[in-house]
Amino acid sequence: MANIKEIAKRAGVSSATVSRVINNNGYVSKETKAKVAQIVKELDYVPNRNAVSLKKGATKLIGIVAPLFSDSLNVFLKSFTIAAQAKNYNVTLFVTGLDKSKEMEALEMLRRKQLDGLVLAIRLNDWDVIEHYTKYGPIVTWQRIENSSVASVFMNQYDGYMLGLEHLYAQGYRRIMNVYGNINGLNTKSRMDAYEDFCVKYDLDSRLFPHIHSQAHRKDGEKLAHWWKAQAGVKPDAFITSADFFAAGLVTEARRLGITVPDDFAVCGFDDMDVAHLLDITTIHYPVDKQGENAFTIINNYLNNESTPLLELDFHLVVRKTT
Amino acid sequence: MANIKEIAKRAGVSSATVSRVINNNGYVSKETKAKVAQIVKELDYVPNRNAVSLKKGATKLIGIVAPLFSDSLNVFLKSFTIAAQAKNYNVTLFVTGLDKSKEMEALEMLRRKQLDGLVLAIRLNDWDVIEHYTKYGPIVTWQRIENSSVASVFMNQYDGYMLGLEHLYAQGYRRIMNVYGNINGLNTKSRMDAYEDFCVKYDLDSRLFPHIHSQAHRKDGEKLAHWWKAQAGVKPDAFITSADFFAAGLVTEARRLGITVPDDFAVCGFDDMDVAHLLDITTIHYPVDKQGENAFTIINNYLNNESTPLLELDFHLVVRKTT
Repeated sequence: MANIKEIAKRAGVSSATVSRVINNNGYVSKETKAKVAQIVKELDYVPNRNAVSLKKGATKLIGIVAPLFSDSLNVFLKSFTIAAQAKNYNVTLFVTGLDKSKEMEALEMLRRKQLDGLVLAIRLNDWDVIEHYTKYGPIVTWQRIENSSVASVFMNQYDGYMLGLEHLYAQGYRRIMNVYGNINGLNTKSRMDAYEDFCVKYDLDSRLFPHIHSQAHRKDGEKLAHWWKAQAGVKPDAFITSADFFAAGLVTEARRLGITVPDDFAVCGFDDMDVAHLLDITTIHYPVDKQGENAFTIINNYLNNESTPLLELDFHLVVRKTT
Repeated sequence: MANIKEIAKRAGVSSATVSRVINNNGYVSKETKAKVAQIVKELDYVPNRNAVSLKKGATKLIGIVAPLFSDSLNVFLKSFTIAAQAKNYNVTLFVTGLDKSKEMEALEMLRRKQLDGLVLAIRLNDWDVIEHYTKYGPIVTWQRIENSSVASVFMNQYDGYMLGLEHLYAQGYRRIMNVYGNINGLNTKSRMDAYEDFCVKYDLDSRLFPHIHSQAHRKDGEKLAHWWKAQAGVKPDAFITSADFFAAGLVTEARRLGITVPDDFAVCGFDDMDVAHLLDITTIHYPVDKQGENAFTIINNYLNNESTPLLELDFHLVVRKTT
C-alpha cells in the first residue's frame, strides 16, 4: 500500500508537504498541491484515519448508552446527534437492555480512547464504578445524580409533577392515583416526594390508592383502564402518569370501554409528545430536545475548551381535554 | 506508558503469551495468566484498541445513514442495533439532513476501514457514486434499487398499497385520494403504479383528485382535514396514506372539525405503529423491524462468511375503525 514517503519521493517534495496537502492545512503552492493530488490519485492512496486518531487520541466519536429506545429517548438522541454532527462528531449507540457489561464496554472504549466522550442516558452500573472513568473523558448523564462528579442535564421532576398535581387539584380532583416509571430512579423518587408534599398541603390521604411503578407503555395504560372499570368501591377520579404513551393507552382504552374522560376520570400525561397532541391529552411539556443539546454542549466545552452556555430548561403545563 | 514488551519482561514470559492473556484467546496456564494480569494491573496497562483495529482492519462498527429520524426509521434502527450488538458490533449514526457530504463522510469511513459496513436507509448520493464503495465493505439499503450491486432489504410497496386499495374498494369507496411520501423515491413510484393498475382494473378515473406528495407528518394530516372541509363540489370519500402519523393527524383533526370518519371519509394508514392502534386506524402492517434484522444479517453474512437465512417479509391488512 502506498504511503506518504513514497508519494513525497515521487512528487519531489517533503513528507510534511504531502501531509499538508492530504490534511488540507498549512500553505502549499497551487502547483505542488496539484502534483501531490495527482500522485495520491494514481496510487489510490487512502490516509489511514485510525492511525491519525491513534496519534491525536481523538476519534470524533461520542457514545450514548441507554437501556432501550423509548419515545423520549429518541427525541434526546435526535437533538444530541444533530448538535454533535454540527461540530463534526458522530454518535455511536450502546443499547444495554439490562446488561451492565454493555455499559462497561462503552466505558472501556472511553478509557481506550475509542470514544471521545460518553452519555449515560440511564446508567446501569453503580455511580462509583462510573466515576472512576471520568478521568478518561467527559461523561454526562440524563438522570438525576447525587454526590457525583459526573455531569448531568437532569431536570427536577418534582417541579414538573407538581404542576400536574396542582392543575388536577384546581380542576376539583381529589382522588388522584399515581403511575410512576422506573421504580429505582431518582426521577421517580422526586415525583413521589412531590405527591407527598402535595397531600400534606391539601390534607389528602397519600395512601388512598396503591402507587403503581414501571408503567410507561401504551399497553400498560390499556390494562389500567380495565382495572378501573372492574374496581368496586372508591375509585380514582384522576390519574397522573409519567409518560404520554401510557396516558394515551389509558385514554383510548377507556373510550373503548365506555368510560368518559374527564368526567369519569381525568388523565395527565408527561413529556408532551405528538401522541398527546393527537389525543388531546393534558400533559407536562418536558424539553428533552434541549437536554440533548445541553448534553452535547457539556461534552464539547470539555473537549475543546469552549464555554458555550447551556439552554435554560423549564417544565410547563399544557392543558387539553383529559382534565 | 507501559507496553506488552515491558509486561512480558517483568512476567518472564514472551510477548505472545502476554497478548494471549490480554485478548483472552489461546491457552495460557492459570499461574501465568494470574501473574500477567497482576502486572497489567500494577502498570495500569490499557491495550490500544485503535492499534488492534489498525492491524485487523475491523473496528466492529457499522454505520447507519439516514436523512432524519422518522418513526419507522426508529423501529428499523432499534432492531438493527439489537441484532448488531448480539454479534458484538456497535452502530454509529449519520444523520444527513439533506447534506450529501454527510453520507459521503460515512462512505469514506468505510473506505478507510473506520467502519466495517454501512446501511444507507435512504441514500442521497447517486447509486453509481455509492456502488463504487461496495468494494470497501458491505453496503445495504432499505430502499428499492434497480440495476445496482448494493444489497437491499426493500419490500415492494406495490403489494402493501394494493392491499389497502382493494380493501377500500370492497368497503364501497370509489373516490380515493392518494397521499404519498418522498416524491423521488422508488417506493412512491411503486405505490403510484399500484394505484394506476387499481384504477384500470375497476375502471376508475385515476386523475379525479390531485396526487399529494411528501406528506408523512401529523401536522400535514391535520392540514388535509381542513382542505377537505373547505372543498366545494366532489370530494374524496377515502384517503390512502403512506404513514400512520399522517393518518393520525388527519383522523383527529377531522374529529375536531366535526367530520365523521369513516362516514364522511375513510382513512387507511401505513406501517401499523402504536399510534394506529391507539386511534383505531385501519392500516397496512409493514414489518420494518424484520427488515432491520435482515439488513444486519446481510452485513454479518458478508463480514463473517456466514449464511444465516433472511426472515420472510409480508405485508398484511389490519382493519380497524377508519374504513
